Amino acid sequence: MAGSSPAMMAMVESVWSLDPKLATDTVPVGDLALTRVLLSNNANFPWLILVPRLPGLVEITDLELNEQVQLLGEIDAAARVLKSVTECEKLNIAALGNVVAQLHVHVIGRRHSDAAWPKPVWGAAKPSAYSPALRDGLIGALRRGLKITDRERAER
Amino acid sequence: MAGSSPAMMAMVESVWSLDPKLATDTVPVGDLALTRVLLSNNANFPWLILVPRLPGLVEITDLELNEQVQLLGEIDAAARVLKSVTECEKLNIAALGNVVAQLHVHVIGRRHSDAAWPKPVWGAAKPSAYSPALRDGLIGALRRGLKITDRERAER
Repeated sequence: MAGSSPAMMAMVESVWSLDPKLATDTVPVGDLALTRVLLSNNANFPWLILVPRLPGLVEITDLELNEQVQLLGEIDAAARVLKSVTECEKLNIAALGNVVAQLHVHVIGRRHSDAAWPKPVWGAAKPSAYSPALRDGLIGALRRGLKITDRERAER
Repeated sequence: MAGSSPAMMAMVESVWSLDPKLATDTVPVGDLALTRVLLSNNANFPWLILVPRLPGLVEITDLELNEQVQLLGEIDAAARVLKSVTECEKLNIAALGNVVAQLHVHVIGRRHSDAAWPKPVWGAAKPSAYSPALRDGLIGALRRGLKITDRERAER
């Protein structure tokens, strides 16, 4: 669908909806061309989740090649902005999907001092919700870095 | 470097070497255009590791865009072949690098009955080495699927 017309993308998106568990565990940052960018509501790790807004996806291999390249570009952008904003020491990038089937990609900033290092973050430490001020400041910086300005779409 | 001449690729490769821990924990499957494909010597999970043969890489964002696209193509190929050969139920694809800094991408076939499901595989179960017959059969099938024929390179 990458490269399709805005009208076509809007039609396909109209039958897509965010997985309820992803919605519960995150706050929206905003939409890039292909993916909805979410911030995991867990202050232990700066942790973005990118969800392609196309219905029925489980594996990266379910995307057509041009869609995969678009996804990769958005992962690259999210990773660079997350690293710049949080000054993290390492990135972890992963598409697992063992618990939530809807295709989603984790982009996580890691520090040698974080609650799980050097282990992966999944299941490693009890989630700790952001304070509203910290969360909103982080989301604002991420939106500026990702050049997301369409607040209405991000919050729907 | 993707798109560079074979001579240029050979020169750059000549200063690249596989991380010793990755070498110890895996057996080589063979080389694709950009990456060396390794099989984790752990029969609990069918688990490939793709390592770009360029020196000094830590993050996917260290690659230029055309190299990222080449890496994505090789991840896609490895994932499809792994799924076809092992008939796994889910793919886990991840670039973590918290323990081994050299950029490497995990492509792991998961089953609902495997030793860690639905958790991630890292640190989840004691590794169990393949029998030589099972290992060689799997590597042969992976090489055929990936159209790797240059045995000498794979074994160096």
